Amino acid sequence: MKCYSKMSKDELLKERDSLLTIYDDYCKKNLKLDMSRGKPSSAQLNVSNEIFDCIDSKSNFIAKDGIDTRNYGDLYGIEEAKEYFADVLCVDKDMVMAGGSSSLNLEYSLLAGAMLYGIKGCKPWKDLSEVKFLCPSPGYDRHFAITEHMGIKMINVPYNDCILDIDMIEKLVADDESIKGMWCVPKYENPLGITYSDELVKRIANIKPKAKDFILIWDNAYFIHDIYEDKKDTLYNIFDAVKGTGNEDMVYCFTSTSKITIAGGGISAMITSKRNLEDLKKDITITIISYDKVNMLRHVKFLKNKENTIEHMKKHAKFLRPKFDLVKKIFEESLGGLEIAKWTKPNGGYFITFWTLNNLAKKVYERCKKAGVVLTQVGAAFPYGIDPNDNCLRIAPSYPELDELENAAKLFCVCVKLESIEYYLNN
Amino acid sequence: MKCYSKMSKDELLKERDSLLTIYDDYCKKNLKLDMSRGKPSSAQLNVSNEIFDCIDSKSNFIAKDGIDTRNYGDLYGIEEAKEYFADVLCVDKDMVMAGGSSSLNLEYSLLAGAMLYGIKGCKPWKDLSEVKFLCPSPGYDRHFAITEHMGIKMINVPYNDCILDIDMIEKLVADDESIKGMWCVPKYENPLGITYSDELVKRIANIKPKAKDFILIWDNAYFIHDIYEDKKDTLYNIFDAVKGTGNEDMVYCFTSTSKITIAGGGISAMITSKRNLEDLKKDITITIISYDKVNMLRHVKFLKNKENTIEHMKKHAKFLRPKFDLVKKIFEESLGGLEIAKWTKPNGGYFITFWTLNNLAKKVYERCKKAGVVLTQVGAAFPYGIDPNDNCLRIAPSYPELDELENAAKLFCVCVKLESIEYYLNN
Repeated sequence: MKCYSKMSKDELLKERDSLLTIYDDYCKKNLKLDMSRGKPSSAQLNVSNEIFDCIDSKSNFIAKDGIDTRNYGDLYGIEEAKEYFADVLCVDKDMVMAGGSSSLNLEYSLLAGAMLYGIKGCKPWKDLSEVKFLCPSPGYDRHFAITEHMGIKMINVPYNDCILDIDMIEKLVADDESIKGMWCVPKYENPLGITYSDELVKRIANIKPKAKDFILIWDNAYFIHDIYEDKKDTLYNIFDAVKGTGNEDMVYCFTSTSKITIAGGGISAMITSKRNLEDLKKDITITIISYDKVNMLRHVKFLKNKENTIEHMKKHAKFLRPKFDLVKKIFEESLGGLEIAKWTKPNGGYFITFWTLNNLAKKVYERCKKAGVVLTQVGAAFPYGIDPNDNCLRIAPSYPELDELENAAKLFCVCVKLESIEYYLNN
Repeated sequence: MKCYSKMSKDELLKERDSLLTIYDDYCKKNLKLDMSRGKPSSAQLNVSNEIFDCIDSKSNFIAKDGIDTRNYGDLYGIEEAKEYFADVLCVDKDMVMAGGSSSLNLEYSLLAGAMLYGIKGCKPWKDLSEVKFLCPSPGYDRHFAITEHMGIKMINVPYNDCILDIDMIEKLVADDESIKGMWCVPKYENPLGITYSDELVKRIANIKPKAKDFILIWDNAYFIHDIYEDKKDTLYNIFDAVKGTGNEDMVYCFTSTSKITIAGGGISAMITSKRNLEDLKKDITITIISYDKVNMLRHVKFLKNKENTIEHMKKHAKFLRPKFDLVKKIFEESLGGLEIAKWTKPNGGYFITFWTLNNLAKKVYERCKKAGVVLTQVGAAFPYGIDPNDNCLRIAPSYPELDELENAAKLFCVCVKLESIEYYLNN
């Protein structure tokens, strides 16, 4: 098909009429479709059900370190949980703290601690006139919600054509002592689905922050969440990258098994230098006696090690792959060549990022909503909820069933086309 | 035996010699005994093992509200968990938030939120020149650790002969706007083991704090933790007590199943007015997506309801009762009539509080330590770790086996006697 920008007014009007007929037909169906949530589907959840057979009343509850997992103790988690995370993330187990069911909560607690008590021996952030954070965008909405809620000023660092503006980062952190940290989802980024290149990881590892208490939040949420067996992204190990740079204490890496086993019922981890772990103990010991160690034991028994976890992730991929493929196929068939949109083709993670022409994202969102398809709120992936170009949409294909997803993606494309035609008719 | 204060110097010296022989014998045994930790014993943990059979791979994971407990969602917990806590605590289920494995963590988060964002629409505490908390003492060391760590000034409110100085509380909160809250463990208080009288609960409910954002932390950790079937304390319902007083939004009650099922692996709850729950949502939603709902489901399946939980607690009591009885018997036999000590005789909870003559607690602690018996650090139950009279010791009989406990308690009494004799010899 001819690209929209080259169509005459008559051609556009004709195209609009035919699309409106399709759109109206969809509207009559009273659809209730949802592509907004990065949640695993029920079928995916079923692949981990056997985790609940790993512990029963007859189990041996004693951890390797001799601690009874049913009792208090082990603030930083049981030995085997540390070993597990060390194995899957290729880090030293002395750098691991195993936590509760939420890595987001660990991230929040780190920032709340920095606000209230300071970090790395520096002044509490609450006592500074200004605290800023770098926010590579589009990024994870819940990260930005934390910094916004804490009154931390967020600076939008763009991914230009999916490549993070590292020049901007290098300059900003070197110049401004009030920049205290940066959010990163380096692998299968939420929502881009891209993975940081080796060069990017190394340049990030080598930044020279003016602030002594600059913290790099390395949210490796999708570290092993591949969709294709023949196309897997690899992420350069940030802890190898910082060696010898003077930034050995800069990185706080987080992950969890939420999208490996049970969403919101998995185990989490913080990985950081031994010195940082030691330093944080005085704050963390105030917040909790110990995390749920039986759940740690249950997880290690089920997931075992890296090799077994990779095998387990293939079961998730089996359900995710056709969904991602379907959406990409529909996008390509409906929108390919029209020059009105682009989208990412991730090898893993939970999201596809979709760009409309500028200033159309909100309109597409509203048009979809009227027809019964819920998308993630426009702007959610940007600091303060503001997408500067109003052109970015997050597509979450994981949760709906295939037939629902097909309807939703097709209707979405109709909406994108309709809004693009309106644009060309009026410009 | 004659009371020590009436003994002659010769009598005291003779008594000391005979006690030192016993003490030296103990020292030679290289004992390693611990009466410091309020932890359930292994036998107690075993009584809840069947909780791990309540969920397996074949379970129905869908909660009453239709939510899949294996997926994200339900920030305030599943319906049946709210109903469970509402049942056991005799409160409205709309006042319940069910949380993760730690009620201490919920308490911490409430205070951290008040510091960072303010509470009840008032200024964040971090922006005030001074914030104070009332700390009934002896109290729970981890409560005081939170307020101390946050830089909140702690005011020691004494329990005089186990009766809280409510006059002092009424006066202080009415006069001083910087007093923002009070810690209370109203039932089987940690470490006193006493329960607030109906009158005391009503007077607390009727205080008139000058601060609009005064919060009463009502840590009902031992709400159902009776040791004797024929002697059970009852606690007047604080939420009934505040009705009509204007303090309907003052109370934040916390509890968990840590000492009902799995220590550090149970489920927790915050109970407060519907208005407070609504108001806190904006803060809590920032900290976590949702808590472990499978563990909530597991707990409700196992504990069922109040009646069944009371039956379950009898199994714990079976192990706790002989330990408390043994310690009290040894104290009575060794120290009764000497007028050098007193101690509480609780009907529930995890602790006995023991008072030496003034200024002897640290000395007793050290003497016990030398002989291989670890007690809770002296002062731990007081703000800033300072026991103003240096006479208060927390005894935790739950964890050691009976034979260990017998040795530890007997040795403890020898140490108390020896230090008391030293006192009388020098005064």
